[in-house]
Amino acid sequence: MQSPDPVTLAEFRALCAALPAPDAGAVAAARARDAVLTKPPGALGRLEEITRWLAAWQGRAVPEAGRVQITVFAGNHGVTARGISAFPAEVTVQMVENFRQGGAAINQLARTFGAELEVIALDLDRPTRDFCSAPAMEEAELVAALQAGWQSVRPGTDLYIAGEMGIGNTTSAAALSAALFGHDGGIAGWCGRGTGLDDAGLRRKEAAVALALALHDGHLADPFEALCRLGGREVAAMTGAVLHARLLRVPVLLDGFIACAAAAVLERAQPGALDHCMAAHQSAEGAHGRLLQAIGKEPLLSLGLRLGEGSGAGVALGLIRAALACHSGMATFAEAGVSGA
Amino acid sequence: MQSPDPVTLAEFRALCAALPAPDAGAVAAARARDAVLTKPPGALGRLEEITRWLAAWQGRAVPEAGRVQITVFAGNHGVTARGISAFPAEVTVQMVENFRQGGAAINQLARTFGAELEVIALDLDRPTRDFCSAPAMEEAELVAALQAGWQSVRPGTDLYIAGEMGIGNTTSAAALSAALFGHDGGIAGWCGRGTGLDDAGLRRKEAAVALALALHDGHLADPFEALCRLGGREVAAMTGAVLHARLLRVPVLLDGFIACAAAAVLERAQPGALDHCMAAHQSAEGAHGRLLQAIGKEPLLSLGLRLGEGSGAGVALGLIRAALACHSGMATFAEAGVSGA
Repeated sequence: MQSPDPVTLAEFRALCAALPAPDAGAVAAARARDAVLTKPPGALGRLEEITRWLAAWQGRAVPEAGRVQITVFAGNHGVTARGISAFPAEVTVQMVENFRQGGAAINQLARTFGAELEVIALDLDRPTRDFCSAPAMEEAELVAALQAGWQSVRPGTDLYIAGEMGIGNTTSAAALSAALFGHDGGIAGWCGRGTGLDDAGLRRKEAAVALALALHDGHLADPFEALCRLGGREVAAMTGAVLHARLLRVPVLLDGFIACAAAAVLERAQPGALDHCMAAHQSAEGAHGRLLQAIGKEPLLSLGLRLGEGSGAGVALGLIRAALACHSGMATFAEAGVSGA
Repeated sequence: MQSPDPVTLAEFRALCAALPAPDAGAVAAARARDAVLTKPPGALGRLEEITRWLAAWQGRAVPEAGRVQITVFAGNHGVTARGISAFPAEVTVQMVENFRQGGAAINQLARTFGAELEVIALDLDRPTRDFCSAPAMEEAELVAALQAGWQSVRPGTDLYIAGEMGIGNTTSAAALSAALFGHDGGIAGWCGRGTGLDDAGLRRKEAAVALALALHDGHLADPFEALCRLGGREVAAMTGAVLHARLLRVPVLLDGFIACAAAAVLERAQPGALDHCMAAHQSAEGAHGRLLQAIGKEPLLSLGLRLGEGSGAGVALGLIRAALACHSGMATFAEAGVSGA
């Protein structure tokens, strides 16, 4: 069943065309159990949807979340030279150290909700090229990043979250999203303030994205090519991770704008490629809502988060815990001696 | 500081006029800490709002949630004779037993998020009178119910949740909300399907609410009088609990339509009386969104829940845990050696 690990871009592309389907039997069994638990039918709303989604990909009528994996990928971006971030580029490596010391938001969230946290720094001393003047990565760099993500997903994981850290990466995600889904309404709709850009910074960001789209025009129709030219190592790693999770039937909780842009590459390569993914939240970065619509995902939360690191998905883990506790722990009408409707 | 427990309706009314204010110093200190944690300013969105809200009422710069109290009040309603619920009235007492045996949704949520759960059944063998033909309660019954709620709130509680169980109580909450906030757009805007009414049942519910509002017309201007005539014991208990929590400076996480209707009595008695309350969620009962607007609350979650029991607030406890873990556990820029913006 398990494919060998892909080693060329052609192999990654080919895998997108042969994706496993959800387990309809497990979904039906989860639905049948929900129907007899001591509550009106459907009264737990989207918690019941969460249960069916996990059932579908885990292949279990009573899904579990004993092994939740959060992997945070870090990368640096040449485009930061254009003044498109509120923070200096050295913050990427500093935050990786903060993750390792347990001081970041995602550390607290992983601990609170019982997830394993791994941090993978991708050649931080070798930023991608400024995609306003050249492709961000060569094909071999792209493949290495896809593989780093691919290899991070462990078989037997109940739920996977990909997070990211990379000063400048909302600019990369904006350019990538515009390439994948078009920018008829203008580039500004894909560009936000990221970590807190001021007005002048936002104009520089929009200009950088416009320049990149013009430079790479004619080479962006293939989503992996767009990823190579406009993405970053941590972005491509998330793409590889989400793809491998699908092959392993591991459900994925999608984080914010950058994680969704990474995943969107797969959706453009093969519609339905993100059927194993649930959107954890809609962030304060305006383009995230637009991107969620483009990939057909309804976010669980909308709390104005804009931190990255997998933090929105980390917060949504509380909903996963709630959903599974109710589904597995509640009494049935028969067990409790409660009259039905 | 602590007032003696009120024993008359006049005493409950009087307490609404002398409510304690939030602790501005604790809020400022919480805000100052959030500003130096290793994240862009404001990047945790509403999680930071949660922290400031808890700080305001607990009077602590680093708020805690070691003692979270969920109290579920149960009551029966004479109006159920009019066929306004999808479930028979005996389900109230059956569900109370289910709570005591640990089989309901709220049991799983309390366990998942480390809350204490108490269930208080209020004269289940003595339903309120059908408010379409008489006031639901006499004043002495109202006072007893308010007191039951009042007494449930323990000093030193970090966060309080009031939940409810009572077949027929969305009809009571609809009538009460219409009395408190008017029904210019028609009664239907306050009436929903509750636990799952069919179309004919919904028409009976609307007719019952219309009948009640006509019968009690001229006696509904005072919110406690409206509560007495249209509420129920579990509804009034929640009103008493939310009031006592305010006096004790215990923050309250508001659950769904019925809990919010109970709390709204206080807001109508004294604007600002719910400043210590955060709305946990917006339920699938359409009138809940309308009621949240009327009391000026923005819900944290909107997951299509419609179960009651305090379950929406129970799910939102995950967000409380997330917010406090980040606020108390994250490193500062200085501690982590991370460059600021």
